[in-house]
Parts: sequence; structure tokens; C-alpha cells
Amino acid sequence: MTEAEVNRSVLKKDAPIGVFDSGVGGLTVVREIMRQIPNEKIIYFGDTARLPYGSKSRDTVTRFSEQIVRFLRTFQVKTIVVACNTASAYAMERLEQDTDIPMIGVVKPGAKMAAEMTRNGKVGVIATEATIGSGIYTEYIQDLNKNVTVYGKACPLFVPLVEEGLWEDPVTDEIARRYLTELIDIDIDTLILGCTHYPLIRSTLRKIMGESVTLVNPAYETARELKEMLGKLDLLCTEPPGLGSNRYQFYVSDKAEKFVRFANSIIKYGILSARTVNVEDFEGRR
Amino acid sequence: MTEAEVNRSVLKKDAPIGVFDSGVGGLTVVREIMRQIPNEKIIYFGDTARLPYGSKSRDTVTRFSEQIVRFLRTFQVKTIVVACNTASAYAMERLEQDTDIPMIGVVKPGAKMAAEMTRNGKVGVIATEATIGSGIYTEYIQDLNKNVTVYGKACPLFVPLVEEGLWEDPVTDEIARRYLTELIDIDIDTLILGCTHYPLIRSTLRKIMGESVTLVNPAYETARELKEMLGKLDLLCTEPPGLGSNRYQFYVSDKAEKFVRFANSIIKYGILSARTVNVEDFEGRR
Repeated sequence: MTEAEVNRSVLKKDAPIGVFDSGVGGLTVVREIMRQIPNEKIIYFGDTARLPYGSKSRDTVTRFSEQIVRFLRTFQVKTIVVACNTASAYAMERLEQDTDIPMIGVVKPGAKMAAEMTRNGKVGVIATEATIGSGIYTEYIQDLNKNVTVYGKACPLFVPLVEEGLWEDPVTDEIARRYLTELIDIDIDTLILGCTHYPLIRSTLRKIMGESVTLVNPAYETARELKEMLGKLDLLCTEPPGLGSNRYQFYVSDKAEKFVRFANSIIKYGILSARTVNVEDFEGRR
Repeated sequence: MTEAEVNRSVLKKDAPIGVFDSGVGGLTVVREIMRQIPNEKIIYFGDTARLPYGSKSRDTVTRFSEQIVRFLRTFQVKTIVVACNTASAYAMERLEQDTDIPMIGVVKPGAKMAAEMTRNGKVGVIATEATIGSGIYTEYIQDLNKNVTVYGKACPLFVPLVEEGLWEDPVTDEIARRYLTELIDIDIDTLILGCTHYPLIRSTLRKIMGESVTLVNPAYETARELKEMLGKLDLLCTEPPGLGSNRYQFYVSDKAEKFVRFANSIIKYGILSARTVNVEDFEGRR
């Protein structure tokens, strides 16, 4: 039995699931987890003091992610979901090496679904500069199917447009048209929404891409794989948590009130509060 | 003689000026300092790992600014220019309390110029959410002239549009029109560009506001006040630095190469390199 397996044997079914993102985008993943495995408790962390991650370097995103994992582990979480494409692209491998609990990122589940869905072998990925630059979607998809060609397109304005609330707006249409034209010209038949903010402008993307292109939402696929993984490890929570058991807890590194307002527009569940934590305090020894 | 005065007496004329911003915007201030006091040496720091500041809280922006001041002081700078409106709005008072060298922010010089320029007593300020929320421009302007009314408008999309290079673009026109319409309707005669990124879209702002509105660029006013302050303190560098004396040095917390590319589009001077530093290491004792 390896050390990792020993430690996994002490994980508890009723322990919470840790989820993190650079900010609010990861809530689209939380929403899917709530829907698909409603008995689970969730500890969410959004790094609102240092967002966005998508324009930052591998080293920086990895350092930030490591701090967050240390913070989430203080809650004895049974698994950690990296609900941020950039952190999944840049830090996943390192986090998995250093962590003895099971982890899941958003990139692999999305890549797998796209590889299965494409008919003409042309898959588009829209994401942050960092995720596209890492080439990780291409790598995972081609591991599954060498005949698929992956076309990546960085869309840096989508996150600020979403954060500004312009989910359905002529400006967002125009920017989306500019970003997506080359993917339409290439005739992709599958498009991965490779940033957790993007499902919020799904209707704009659908309008621009047309009905014939399959839109893959990694948030949905990640929740599905999470359920499967927890099932295999016999870690699915079988009973709903009792009343007053603090089922969903939200932490951020800054601006808790603004986070709650935004969160309530994504998760129609009534997020009552979020607490602020100084995540830089969870720096490890270097 | 106060402690601060004692320490100031050891400041050297040929010491560099420290300048910082959350990222590249502060370079519009550096550009003005280079023009107006060309003999000076400059150490610039851009907090590219944690930008933007404009959507973050007072506590967070203050903590980040304190770390940066500690970093800049390792160069024995003779003064520090807070070339970021958000940091000037949120952290200036605290930084001045804790620092025994002269400091200058971008808010006061811009406020002073606007108070002098307005004829109809209606001044508009466009800036980040944080700067507008702080109410600092209103406070400074009304300290100078009680009869001026200040109208603030947060413009959160301007920074990402500038960073995406859409300095002259129909999308930027459209967003600017939405943000500025209410200020035009109010009939302001003076508009403060209250974020160091905004001078880069000056021509768009001019087009939307029309010729009759005075645009105040705090970067220009700050360099002017800096010159005046250094003159009074007998700290102006009287001779150009010798060859090979590393006149301008640039540091960032992330993505040095991208910074250099962007910097070269702002300062037509040839910024050859920037170095990356982990500014979190300059945390003080809490």
C-alpha cells in the first residue's frame, strides 16, 4: 500500500469537497456539483484578491494554487476540485504530486467529452491566454484520439465582459464574433468552453457558432467525473447533511460582499455569506 | 527636527526615484517624469502577478502597496511615486504615515488641476470602481473649492480594453459612450482621467466628450508636482547619469516579457528588459 493509499483510507464519506477558482467562475462548477451530487458538502475558495489567473505565468499560478490547497486541507476535505482552467492547465500535475488526496481538474473531463463528440475531427477551444498557451487541451485530446486537430483561441475580454454583467449584449456579440470567426472558418464541429466564466455567455456563443456546433461545458463533465470518482473510491456521501450543518461554505481572499452578489446571480440557491481569508498566509516552506 | 526630517537629510540627489503601479498603467506617469525631469534615475515596479487593483478592497490594496514600498526602499530611493490611482486613493495616507521619505500620489495633483480648470463647477472623474468608491477625488477637490460638484463614474472595462490593445476601436467607442453619456448630460466641463491606463485612450475620450471639455491627465500633473517637490527639497538630480549607470530599471511580479512588449508601446525609449521579483516576500510583521 502506498502512502497515498494509506492516507486515502482515512478519508471520510461525510467530509466536504474542496473547490477552488481564481474568483467566481468556479461557481459554474459548484452549481453542477450541487445538481448532480446534492448530498455533498462543499468548501469553496475564490482568489478574488489576485484574480484573474488567465494572464499570469505558470510559476505564479502554481504558487497561488499551492497556497489554496493548503488552506482547503485545513477543512479535512476528502477531495479537491480545481475549478479553474488556468490552474488546471498550469498547476494540476504539481498539485497531484504533492497531495495525498484525490484531485480533479476541469481540463481532462472537457477534453474527453470533446474527443468523443467530434465527428469531423476539428475541435475548437476558447480559453484564457494561459490555458491556450499551455497547449494542454490539445495534449489531452490527442492522447485520446490522434486524428483530432485542436484549434485554440485566447479570448481575454470575455472574463471582464462577464464580470461587468454584459452576458447578453451587442458588445459581447461583437467581441465574440471577432474571437470566433477563425474557428467558424476552420469549420470546427465542437467547441470547448475552456474557462469557467464562459458558460455564463453560452447563449451568445451559441448564436455566433450556430446550432450545428456542439458546445462542451467542462463544468458539467467535471461534476459527472467527480461523482464517478467518488463512487469508485466509496466516498460518495449517502445521506443529506443535517440541518445547520453548514453545507456550503464560501471563502474568498477579498471583497466577500461583491462575491456574494455575483454568486447569487449564478447559483439560484441563496448564498448567504462568504468569509475573507488571507491566503498568502498559507505559503509553504521554500 | 522630527525623525522624518532627520532621515530626509540623508537622502541623496543622485538616488533613484521609485515608482509603482499595479501593472503597466503607471508607465504613463514614468513617461511624463522622463520628459519633465530627464536627469533622474527611476526604479519602476509593476504588480503584474496581482493586477488589477481597481476591483479590490482597501485592505488588500494597502497590504500590496506596503510590500512594494518595502521592496522599492531596498534601492535607497529618494522618493516614491504612487503611480496608481487606486493605490493613491486607498493606501496613500497609511503609506505616508509609515514612511520617512517624501511620497507623491497621482490623485492630489489631478484634483488640484481640475479644481483650477473648471469654469462651470462641474467636474467628472472616470476611474476604477475602487477609486470612485473611495470618494477621494471629491474630497480633495472640495477641500480646494467648495463650489465644485464632482461626478464620479467607474469604468471597469477600460483597463481590459486597453490591455487588449483596442485603443482606437468601435467597441471601445461604444463602451466609452455608455460610460460617459451621463457625464455629458450633466454638462461637466472638466474630466479627470482617474486611472493611469486612460491616457492611452485619450483620443477616444476626446471624440466622445467633444472639444469643449478639458481632459485632465494626472500623470502630467504628477510629474510637474514631483519636479517642484524635489526642487524644494533640494533633491533634483543636476547632472545626467553617466553611461552604463542603469538609468531606468523595471521590475514586475510576473510576466516580464509581456510587460516589456507593452511598455515599449507606451514609452518610445526602448525598454530593454524587466526583472521578475516575488514581492510577497516583502511582507512586514503583522
